[in-house]
Amino acid sequence: MQLPLGSLTPDQYVLVYNAFSFGLATFAAATIFFWLGRSQVASEYKTAMTITGLVTFIAFYHYFRIFESFDAAVSMTNGVVETTGKEFNRAYRYVDWLLTVPLLLIELILVMRLSQSETISRSTTLGIAAALMIALGYPGEVSAGIGSDRLLWGALSMVPFLYIVYSLYVGLGKAIQSQPENVRGLIGLARNVTVLSWFFYPVVYFAPFVVDLQGADAFVAIELGYTLADLIAKAAFGVLIFTIAVRKSAASA
Amino acid sequence: MQLPLGSLTPDQYVLVYNAFSFGLATFAAATIFFWLGRSQVASEYKTAMTITGLVTFIAFYHYFRIFESFDAAVSMTNGVVETTGKEFNRAYRYVDWLLTVPLLLIELILVMRLSQSETISRSTTLGIAAALMIALGYPGEVSAGIGSDRLLWGALSMVPFLYIVYSLYVGLGKAIQSQPENVRGLIGLARNVTVLSWFFYPVVYFAPFVVDLQGADAFVAIELGYTLADLIAKAAFGVLIFTIAVRKSAASA
Repeated sequence: MQLPLGSLTPDQYVLVYNAFSFGLATFAAATIFFWLGRSQVASEYKTAMTITGLVTFIAFYHYFRIFESFDAAVSMTNGVVETTGKEFNRAYRYVDWLLTVPLLLIELILVMRLSQSETISRSTTLGIAAALMIALGYPGEVSAGIGSDRLLWGALSMVPFLYIVYSLYVGLGKAIQSQPENVRGLIGLARNVTVLSWFFYPVVYFAPFVVDLQGADAFVAIELGYTLADLIAKAAFGVLIFTIAVRKSAASA
Repeated sequence: MQLPLGSLTPDQYVLVYNAFSFGLATFAAATIFFWLGRSQVASEYKTAMTITGLVTFIAFYHYFRIFESFDAAVSMTNGVVETTGKEFNRAYRYVDWLLTVPLLLIELILVMRLSQSETISRSTTLGIAAALMIALGYPGEVSAGIGSDRLLWGALSMVPFLYIVYSLYVGLGKAIQSQPENVRGLIGLARNVTVLSWFFYPVVYFAPFVVDLQGADAFVAIELGYTLADLIAKAAFGVLIFTIAVRKSAASA
Protein backbone atom coordinates (compact mmCIF):
# COMPACT_ATOMS: atom_id res chain seq x y z
CA MET A 1 0.00 0.00 0.00
CA GLN A 2 1.38 3.39 -0.99
CA LEU A 3 1.42 5.36 2.25
CA PRO A 4 -0.17 8.82 1.98
CA LEU A 5 2.63 10.41 3.99
CA GLY A 6 2.91 13.43 1.69
CA SER A 7 -0.62 14.55 2.50
CA LEU A 8 -0.07 14.73 6.28
CA THR A 9 -0.87 18.18 7.67
CA PRO A 10 1.90 19.82 9.77
CA ASP A 11 -0.17 19.11 12.92
CA GLN A 12 -0.57 15.44 11.97
CA TYR A 13 3.13 15.15 11.17
CA VAL A 14 4.14 16.58 14.55
CA LEU A 15 1.55 14.43 16.36
CA VAL A 16 2.80 11.15 14.83
CA TYR A 17 6.42 12.23 15.35
CA ASN A 18 5.82 12.94 19.02
CA ALA A 19 3.79 9.77 19.53
CA PHE A 20 6.75 7.70 18.26
CA SER A 21 9.15 9.66 20.50
CA PHE A 22 6.78 9.20 23.45
CA GLY A 23 6.69 5.43 22.79
CA LEU A 24 10.46 5.27 22.56
CA ALA A 25 10.99 7.17 25.83
CA THR A 26 8.29 5.24 27.71
CA PHE A 27 9.63 1.84 26.68
CA ALA A 28 13.21 2.80 27.56
CA ALA A 29 12.09 4.04 31.00
CA ALA A 30 9.86 0.99 31.56
CA THR A 31 12.72 -1.39 30.72
CA ILE A 32 14.99 0.15 33.34
CA PHE A 33 12.15 0.15 35.87
CA PHE A 34 11.54 -3.59 35.38
CA TRP A 35 15.19 -4.59 35.40
CA LEU A 36 15.97 -2.54 38.52
CA GLY A 37 12.80 -3.94 40.09
CA ARG A 38 14.17 -7.45 39.54
CA SER A 39 16.21 -7.03 42.74
CA GLN A 40 13.02 -6.39 44.73
CA VAL A 41 11.31 -9.75 43.99
CA ALA A 42 11.98 -13.28 45.28
CA SER A 43 14.25 -15.46 43.14
CA GLU A 44 11.33 -17.45 41.68
CA TYR A 45 9.95 -14.25 40.07
CA LYS A 46 13.22 -12.90 38.68
CA THR A 47 12.77 -14.57 35.28
CA ALA A 48 9.30 -13.02 34.99
CA MET A 49 10.83 -9.57 35.64
CA THR A 50 13.67 -10.18 33.20
CA ILE A 51 11.16 -11.05 30.47
CA THR A 52 8.87 -8.13 31.37
CA GLY A 53 11.87 -5.84 30.77
CA LEU A 54 12.83 -7.72 27.59
CA VAL A 55 9.41 -7.04 26.11
CA THR A 56 9.71 -3.27 26.68
CA PHE A 57 13.38 -3.33 25.62
CA ILE A 58 12.48 -4.95 22.28
CA ALA A 59 9.64 -2.43 21.91
CA PHE A 60 12.08 0.42 22.70
CA TYR A 61 14.39 -0.83 19.94
CA HIS A 62 11.55 -1.00 17.42
CA TYR A 63 10.12 2.42 18.34
CA PHE A 64 13.59 3.84 17.82
CA ARG A 65 13.64 2.23 14.35
CA ILE A 66 10.08 3.37 13.58
CA PHE A 67 10.96 6.93 14.69
CA GLU A 68 14.10 6.95 12.51
CA SER A 69 12.24 5.42 9.57
CA PHE A 70 9.47 8.04 9.80
CA ASP A 71 12.06 10.80 10.14
CA ALA A 72 13.82 9.55 6.99
CA ALA A 73 10.62 9.10 4.96
CA VAL A 74 8.95 12.45 5.69
CA SER A 75 10.34 15.88 6.42
CA MET A 76 8.84 19.22 7.33
CA THR A 77 10.64 22.30 6.06
CA ASN A 78 9.29 25.81 6.57
CA GLY A 79 6.00 24.29 7.70
CA VAL A 80 5.52 22.13 4.57
CA VAL A 81 5.35 18.32 4.89
CA GLU A 82 7.06 16.40 2.08
CA THR A 83 8.02 12.80 1.42
CA THR A 84 11.68 12.16 0.72
CA GLY A 85 11.16 9.06 -1.42
CA LYS A 86 12.57 6.78 1.29
CA GLU A 87 10.27 3.97 2.41
CA PHE A 88 8.55 4.07 5.80
CA ASN A 89 9.06 0.51 7.08
CA ARG A 90 5.73 -0.71 8.44
CA ALA A 91 7.12 -4.18 9.09
CA TYR A 92 8.96 -3.11 12.27
CA ARG A 93 5.72 -3.44 14.24
CA TYR A 94 5.28 -7.04 13.07
CA VAL A 95 8.89 -7.97 13.82
CA ASP A 96 8.33 -6.46 17.27
CA TRP A 97 5.09 -8.36 17.88
CA LEU A 98 6.57 -11.65 16.65
CA LEU A 99 9.09 -11.38 19.49
CA THR A 100 7.12 -9.61 22.22
CA VAL A 101 3.66 -11.17 22.05
CA PRO A 102 4.78 -14.74 22.87
CA LEU A 103 6.98 -13.24 25.64
CA LEU A 104 4.02 -11.31 27.07
CA LEU A 105 2.05 -14.52 27.45
CA ILE A 106 5.04 -16.30 29.01
CA GLU A 107 5.41 -13.36 31.44
CA LEU A 108 1.83 -13.88 32.65
CA ILE A 109 2.31 -17.65 32.97
CA LEU A 110 5.62 -17.27 34.86
CA VAL A 111 4.25 -14.87 37.45
CA MET A 112 1.48 -17.39 38.23
CA ARG A 113 4.06 -20.02 39.20
CA LEU A 114 2.17 -23.07 37.93
CA SER A 115 3.73 -26.54 38.02
CA GLN A 116 6.81 -26.99 35.84
CA SER A 117 5.01 -29.18 33.28
CA GLU A 118 2.02 -26.82 33.07
CA THR A 119 4.34 -23.80 32.67
CA ILE A 120 6.11 -25.46 29.75
CA SER A 121 2.99 -26.75 27.98
CA ARG A 122 1.06 -23.47 28.32
CA SER A 123 4.09 -21.35 27.30
CA THR A 124 4.62 -23.54 24.23
CA THR A 125 1.03 -23.65 22.94
CA LEU A 126 0.26 -19.99 23.69
CA GLY A 127 3.66 -18.86 22.35
CA ILE A 128 3.19 -20.74 19.06
CA ALA A 129 -0.40 -19.52 18.69
CA ALA A 130 0.77 -15.92 19.24
CA ALA A 131 3.57 -16.20 16.67
CA LEU A 132 1.10 -17.72 14.16
CA MET A 133 -1.37 -14.89 14.80
CA ILE A 134 1.26 -12.24 13.96
CA ALA A 135 2.66 -14.09 10.96
CA LEU A 136 -0.82 -14.47 9.43
CA GLY A 137 -1.71 -10.79 9.94
CA TYR A 138 1.42 -9.52 8.23
CA PRO A 139 0.64 -10.30 4.53
CA GLY A 140 -2.69 -8.47 4.94
CA GLU A 141 -1.06 -5.41 6.50
CA VAL A 142 1.44 -4.97 3.67
CA SER A 143 -0.97 -5.92 0.86
CA ALA A 144 -1.92 -3.23 -1.65
CA GLY A 145 -4.82 -1.05 -0.54
CA ILE A 146 -7.63 -1.93 1.85
CA GLY A 147 -9.02 -4.95 0.01
CA SER A 148 -9.73 -8.67 0.02
CA ASP A 149 -6.14 -9.65 0.90
CA ARG A 150 -6.27 -7.62 4.10
CA LEU A 151 -9.64 -9.20 4.90
CA LEU A 152 -8.53 -12.79 4.20
CA TRP A 153 -5.25 -12.71 6.16
CA GLY A 154 -6.89 -10.73 8.95
CA ALA A 155 -9.61 -13.39 9.24
CA LEU A 156 -7.02 -16.22 9.31
CA SER A 157 -5.05 -14.35 11.99
CA MET A 158 -8.20 -14.19 14.12
CA VAL A 159 -8.25 -18.00 14.52
CA PRO A 160 -5.14 -18.21 16.76
CA PHE A 161 -6.20 -14.88 18.33
CA LEU A 162 -9.53 -16.34 19.47
CA TYR A 163 -7.80 -19.54 20.61
CA ILE A 164 -5.50 -17.42 22.86
CA VAL A 165 -8.42 -15.43 24.30
CA TYR A 166 -10.27 -18.70 24.95
CA SER A 167 -7.20 -20.24 26.64
CA LEU A 168 -6.66 -17.19 28.83
CA TYR A 169 -10.27 -17.24 30.01
CA VAL A 170 -11.08 -20.91 30.29
CA GLY A 171 -7.66 -22.58 30.72
CA LEU A 172 -6.03 -19.98 32.96
CA GLY A 173 -9.34 -19.21 34.68
CA LYS A 174 -9.04 -22.32 36.86
CA ALA A 175 -5.36 -21.67 37.60
CA ILE A 176 -6.20 -18.13 38.73
CA GLN A 177 -8.61 -19.50 41.33
CA SER A 178 -5.70 -21.37 42.95
CA GLN A 179 -3.55 -18.22 43.28
CA PRO A 180 -2.97 -16.61 46.73
CA GLU A 181 -5.89 -14.37 47.68
CA ASN A 182 -3.84 -11.11 47.84
CA VAL A 183 -2.98 -11.32 44.13
CA ARG A 184 -5.96 -13.18 42.65
CA GLY A 185 -7.68 -9.92 41.71
CA LEU A 186 -4.49 -8.48 40.22
CA ILE A 187 -3.81 -11.57 38.09
CA GLY A 188 -7.41 -11.49 36.85
CA LEU A 189 -6.84 -7.79 36.02
CA ALA A 190 -3.59 -8.61 34.17
CA ARG A 191 -5.45 -11.27 32.15
CA ASN A 192 -8.25 -8.76 31.34
CA VAL A 193 -5.73 -6.02 30.39
CA THR A 194 -4.09 -8.52 28.03
CA VAL A 195 -7.36 -9.44 26.33
CA LEU A 196 -8.77 -5.89 26.21
CA SER A 197 -5.57 -4.26 24.94
CA TRP A 198 -5.16 -7.06 22.38
CA PHE A 199 -8.65 -6.41 20.99
CA PHE A 200 -7.31 -2.98 20.03
CA TYR A 201 -5.10 -4.55 17.36
CA PRO A 202 -7.83 -6.25 15.25
CA VAL A 203 -10.01 -3.15 15.76
CA VAL A 204 -7.24 -0.96 14.28
CA TYR A 205 -6.55 -3.58 11.58
CA PHE A 206 -10.17 -3.85 10.42
CA ALA A 207 -11.15 -0.20 11.09
CA PRO A 208 -10.54 0.92 7.47
CA PHE A 209 -13.28 -1.51 6.32
CA VAL A 210 -15.83 0.03 8.65
CA VAL A 211 -14.96 3.72 8.98
CA ASP A 212 -14.37 5.65 5.80
CA LEU A 213 -10.91 6.91 6.74
CA GLN A 214 -8.88 7.94 3.76
CA GLY A 215 -5.21 8.57 3.20
CA ALA A 216 -3.41 10.51 5.88
CA ASP A 217 -6.27 10.25 8.41
CA ALA A 218 -6.19 6.43 8.18
CA PHE A 219 -2.41 6.45 8.59
CA VAL A 220 -2.57 8.68 11.69
CA ALA A 221 -5.40 6.64 13.25
CA ILE A 222 -3.57 3.33 12.66
CA GLU A 223 -0.21 4.55 14.01
CA LEU A 224 -1.66 6.27 17.11
CA GLY A 225 -3.97 3.30 17.74
CA TYR A 226 -1.15 0.73 17.61
CA THR A 227 1.10 2.96 19.77
CA LEU A 228 -1.54 3.32 22.49
CA ALA A 229 -2.28 -0.43 22.39
CA ASP A 230 1.45 -1.22 22.70
CA LEU A 231 1.84 1.11 25.68
CA ILE A 232 -1.02 -0.59 27.54
CA ALA A 233 -0.20 -4.18 26.53
CA LYS A 234 3.51 -3.92 27.33
CA ALA A 235 4.33 -1.10 29.80
CA ALA A 236 1.12 -0.85 31.85
CA PHE A 237 0.77 -4.67 31.80
CA GLY A 238 4.37 -4.94 33.01
CA VAL A 239 3.64 -2.70 36.01
CA LEU A 240 0.86 -5.14 36.95
CA ILE A 241 3.23 -8.11 36.62
CA PHE A 242 5.78 -6.28 38.83
CA THR A 243 3.13 -5.52 41.46
CA ILE A 244 2.00 -9.17 41.48
CA ALA A 245 5.61 -10.39 41.80
CA VAL A 246 6.31 -7.98 44.70
CA ARG A 247 3.19 -9.02 46.58
CA LYS A 248 3.78 -12.75 46.08
CA SER A 249 7.42 -12.30 47.17
CA ALA A 250 6.33 -10.50 50.35
CA ALA A 251 3.78 -13.23 51.10
CA SER A 252 6.33 -16.03 50.67
CA ALA A 253 9.03 -14.23 52.74
CA MET B 1 3.41 30.13 16.24
CA GLN B 2 6.28 30.89 13.88
CA LEU B 3 9.34 30.91 16.12
CA PRO B 4 11.55 34.02 15.77
CA LEU B 5 14.69 31.89 15.71
CA GLY B 6 16.22 33.82 12.84
CA SER B 7 16.33 37.03 14.86
CA LEU B 8 18.32 35.55 17.76
CA THR B 9 21.50 37.53 18.40
CA PRO B 10 24.73 35.47 18.42
CA ASP B 11 24.86 35.86 22.24
CA GLN B 12 21.27 34.64 22.62
CA TYR B 13 21.93 31.71 20.28
CA VAL B 14 24.95 30.59 22.29
CA LEU B 15 23.11 31.11 25.58
CA VAL B 16 20.14 28.92 24.60
CA TYR B 17 22.48 26.33 23.05
CA ASN B 18 24.49 26.07 26.26
CA ALA B 19 21.42 26.03 28.47
CA PHE B 20 20.13 22.97 26.61
CA SER B 21 23.54 21.29 26.89
CA PHE B 22 23.66 22.16 30.61
CA GLY B 23 20.23 20.56 31.09
CA LEU B 24 21.27 17.44 29.18
CA ALA B 25 24.46 16.99 31.23
CA THR B 26 22.78 17.70 34.59
CA PHE B 27 19.96 15.22 33.98
CA ALA B 28 22.37 12.51 32.81
CA ALA B 29 24.50 13.00 35.93
CA ALA B 30 21.47 13.14 38.23
CA THR B 31 20.13 9.88 36.77
CA ILE B 32 23.32 8.00 37.55
CA PHE B 33 23.43 9.53 41.05
CA PHE B 34 19.89 8.35 41.86
CA TRP B 35 20.28 4.85 40.44
CA LEU B 36 23.60 4.27 42.18
CA GLY B 37 22.04 5.67 45.37
CA ARG B 38 19.35 3.01 45.15
CA SER B 39 21.70 0.52 46.84
CA GLN B 40 22.04 2.84 49.86
CA VAL B 41 18.37 2.86 50.86
CA ALA B 42 16.20 0.22 52.52
CA SER B 43 14.18 -2.04 50.21
CA GLU B 44 10.93 -0.15 50.83
CA TYR B 45 12.46 3.01 49.27
CA LYS B 46 14.07 1.38 46.24
CA THR B 47 11.07 1.96 43.96
CA ALA B 48 11.07 5.65 44.95
CA MET B 49 14.75 5.89 43.94
CA THR B 50 14.13 3.97 40.69
CA ILE B 51 11.38 6.46 39.76
CA THR B 52 13.47 9.49 40.85
CA GLY B 53 16.13 8.33 38.36
CA LEU B 54 13.50 7.58 35.69
CA VAL B 55 12.26 11.18 35.86
CA THR B 56 15.74 12.60 35.21
CA PHE B 57 16.44 9.87 32.62
CA ILE B 58 13.32 10.84 30.65
CA ALA B 59 14.31 14.52 31.00
CA PHE B 60 17.83 13.68 29.79
CA TYR B 61 16.35 11.98 26.71
CA HIS B 62 14.16 15.00 25.94
CA TYR B 63 16.93 17.57 26.49
CA PHE B 64 19.03 15.54 24.07
CA ARG B 65 16.17 15.74 21.52
CA ILE B 66 15.58 19.46 22.22
CA PHE B 67 19.29 20.16 21.81
CA GLU B 68 19.42 18.24 18.51
CA SER B 69 16.21 19.88 17.28
CA PHE B 70 17.54 23.40 18.06
CA ASP B 71 20.87 22.50 16.43
CA ALA B 72 19.02 21.38 13.27
CA ALA B 73 16.69 24.42 13.17
CA VAL B 74 19.23 27.23 13.66
CA SER B 75 22.88 27.56 12.73
CA MET B 76 25.53 30.20 13.29
CA THR B 77 28.14 30.63 10.59
CA ASN B 78 30.75 33.41 10.65
CA GLY B 79 28.89 35.02 13.54
CA VAL B 80 25.55 35.17 11.67
CA VAL B 81 22.50 33.31 13.06
CA GLU B 82 20.27 31.75 10.42
CA THR B 83 17.31 29.38 10.38
CA THR B 84 17.65 26.25 8.28
CA GLY B 85 13.93 25.80 7.57
CA LYS B 86 13.76 22.71 9.80
CA GLU B 87 11.18 22.86 12.56
CA PHE B 88 12.22 23.39 16.19
CA ASN B 89 9.99 20.86 17.95
CA ARG B 90 8.51 22.66 20.96
CA ALA B 91 6.36 19.67 21.82
CA TYR B 92 9.24 17.68 23.30
CA ARG B 93 8.78 19.58 26.59
CA TYR B 94 5.14 18.56 26.74
CA VAL B 95 5.88 14.92 25.89
CA ASP B 96 8.46 15.03 28.70
CA TRP B 97 6.07 16.59 31.24
CA LEU B 98 3.28 14.16 30.33
CA LEU B 99 5.57 11.34 31.51
CA THR B 100 7.60 12.99 34.27
CA VAL B 101 5.09 15.13 36.16
CA PRO B 102 2.86 12.20 37.24
CA LEU B 103 6.05 10.29 38.17
CA LEU B 104 7.32 13.23 40.28
CA LEU B 105 4.13 13.16 42.35
CA ILE B 106 4.33 9.36 42.70
CA GLU B 107 7.98 9.77 43.87
CA LEU B 108 6.85 12.07 46.69
CA ILE B 109 4.01 9.74 47.69
CA LEU B 110 6.25 6.63 47.63
CA VAL B 111 8.91 8.14 49.88
CA MET B 112 6.22 8.93 52.46
CA ARG B 113 5.30 5.24 52.72
CA LEU B 114 1.58 5.67 53.29
CA SER B 115 -0.74 2.66 53.48
CA GLN B 116 -1.07 0.58 50.31
CA SER B 117 -4.59 1.80 49.56
CA GLU B 118 -3.70 5.46 50.21
CA THR B 119 -0.58 5.16 48.01
CA ILE B 120 -2.64 3.79 45.13
CA SER B 121 -5.53 6.26 45.46
CA ARG B 122 -3.29 9.34 45.81
CA SER B 123 -0.97 8.23 42.99
CA THR B 124 -3.96 7.67 40.70
CA THR B 125 -5.81 10.93 41.33
CA LEU B 126 -2.69 13.14 41.39
CA GLY B 127 -1.21 11.32 38.36
CA ILE B 128 -4.38 11.78 36.29
CA ALA B 129 -4.71 15.44 37.35
CA ALA B 130 -1.08 16.06 36.33
CA ALA B 131 -1.52 14.41 32.91
CA LEU B 132 -4.70 16.47 32.36
CA MET B 133 -2.87 19.68 33.32
CA ILE B 134 -0.14 19.04 30.70
CA ALA B 135 -2.56 17.91 27.97
CA LEU B 136 -4.67 21.07 28.42
CA GLY B 137 -1.67 23.40 28.31
CA TYR B 138 -0.34 21.95 25.04
CA PRO B 139 -2.89 23.37 22.52
CA GLY B 140 -2.26 26.85 23.96
CA GLU B 141 1.51 26.51 23.70
CA VAL B 142 1.46 25.52 20.02
CA SER B 143 -1.36 27.93 19.03
CA ALA B 144 -0.52 30.79 16.68
CA GLY B 145 0.82 33.88 18.44
CA ILE B 146 0.23 35.05 22.00
CA GLY B 147 -3.54 35.30 21.86
CA SER B 148 -6.89 34.12 23.19
CA ASP B 149 -6.14 30.42 22.52
CA ARG B 150 -3.09 30.53 24.77
CA LEU B 151 -5.15 32.29 27.43
CA LEU B 152 -8.10 29.85 27.23
CA TRP B 153 -6.09 26.59 27.31
CA GLY B 154 -3.76 28.03 29.94
CA ALA B 155 -6.73 28.89 32.15
CA LEU B 156 -8.22 25.39 31.71
CA SER B 157 -4.86 23.85 32.57
CA MET B 158 -4.82 25.86 35.82
CA VAL B 159 -7.85 23.94 37.15
CA PRO B 160 -6.02 20.59 37.63
CA PHE B 161 -2.90 22.59 38.61
CA LEU B 162 -4.70 24.24 41.51
CA TYR B 163 -6.31 20.93 42.46
CA ILE B 164 -2.82 19.37 42.75
CA VAL B 165 -1.48 22.27 44.84
CA TYR B 166 -4.55 22.01 47.09
CA SER B 167 -4.09 18.22 47.45
CA LEU B 168 -0.41 18.58 48.28
CA TYR B 169 -1.14 21.15 50.99
CA VAL B 170 -4.38 19.96 52.50
CA GLY B 171 -4.46 16.23 51.69
CA LEU B 172 -0.79 15.45 52.21
CA GLY B 173 -0.48 18.00 55.01
CA LYS B 174 -1.99 15.58 57.52
CA ALA B 175 0.11 12.67 56.24
CA ILE B 176 3.25 14.77 56.67
CA GLN B 177 2.44 15.29 60.35
CA SER B 178 2.53 11.51 60.86
CA GLN B 179 6.03 11.14 59.32
CA PRO B 180 9.05 10.40 61.56
CA GLU B 181 10.36 13.59 63.16
CA ASN B 182 13.82 13.46 61.53
CA VAL B 183 12.31 13.77 58.02
CA ARG B 184 9.13 15.76 58.64
CA GLY B 185 10.86 19.05 57.80
CA LEU B 186 12.49 17.59 54.68
CA ILE B 187 9.23 16.16 53.34
CA GLY B 188 7.56 19.53 53.94
CA LEU B 189 10.46 21.11 52.05
CA ALA B 190 10.09 18.62 49.16
CA ARG B 191 6.39 19.48 49.00
CA ASN B 192 7.20 23.22 48.98
CA VAL B 193 9.90 22.79 46.30
CA THR B 194 7.34 20.94 44.16
CA VAL B 195 4.75 23.69 44.50
CA LEU B 196 7.18 26.63 44.16
CA SER B 197 9.07 25.18 41.18
CA TRP B 198 5.76 24.28 39.54
CA PHE B 199 4.55 27.90 39.84
CA PHE B 200 7.45 28.74 37.49
CA TYR B 201 5.66 27.00 34.61
CA PRO B 202 2.45 29.05 34.55
CA VAL B 203 4.55 32.18 35.19
CA VAL B 204 6.62 31.42 32.06
CA TYR B 205 3.47 30.40 30.16
CA PHE B 206 1.57 33.59 30.96
CA ALA B 207 4.59 35.97 31.03
CA PRO B 208 4.14 37.11 27.40
CA PHE B 209 0.73 38.55 28.34
CA VAL B 210 2.19 40.69 31.10
CA VAL B 211 5.69 41.65 29.98
CA ASP B 212 6.02 43.05 26.49
CA LEU B 213 8.57 40.51 25.30
CA GLN B 214 8.70 40.21 21.55
CA GLY B 215 10.18 37.67 19.18
CA ALA B 216 13.60 36.35 20.09
CA ASP B 217 13.54 37.83 23.63
CA ALA B 218 10.31 35.96 24.41
CA PHE B 219 11.76 32.74 22.99
CA VAL B 220 14.94 33.02 25.09
CA ALA B 221 12.98 33.89 28.25
CA ILE B 222 10.60 30.94 27.79
CA GLU B 223 13.33 28.37 27.06
CA LEU B 224 15.64 29.49 29.89
CA GLY B 225 12.69 29.73 32.30
CA TYR B 226 11.44 26.22 31.55
CA THR B 227 14.98 24.80 31.75
CA LEU B 228 15.59 26.33 35.19
CA ALA B 229 12.19 25.12 36.42
CA ASP B 230 12.91 21.60 35.15
CA LEU B 231 16.29 21.51 36.91
CA ILE B 232 14.74 22.45 40.26
CA ALA B 233 11.59 20.34 39.95
CA LYS B 234 13.41 17.16 38.83
CA ALA B 235 17.10 17.13 39.82
CA ALA B 236 17.11 19.26 43.01
CA PHE B 237 13.81 17.71 44.09
CA GLY B 238 15.31 14.25 43.52
CA VAL B 239 18.22 15.03 45.84
CA LEU B 240 15.67 15.84 48.57
CA ILE B 241 13.85 12.54 47.92
CA PHE B 242 17.17 10.68 48.17
CA THR B 243 18.04 12.42 51.46
CA ILE B 244 14.64 11.56 52.92
CA ALA B 245 14.98 7.92 51.82
CA VAL B 246 18.47 7.63 53.36
CA ARG B 247 17.34 9.11 56.70
CA LYS B 248 14.23 6.95 56.89
CA SER B 249 16.31 3.86 56.01
CA ALA B 250 18.76 4.66 58.84
CA ALA B 251 15.90 5.16 61.29
CA SER B 252 14.25 1.82 60.41
CA ALA B 253 17.54 -0.15 60.52
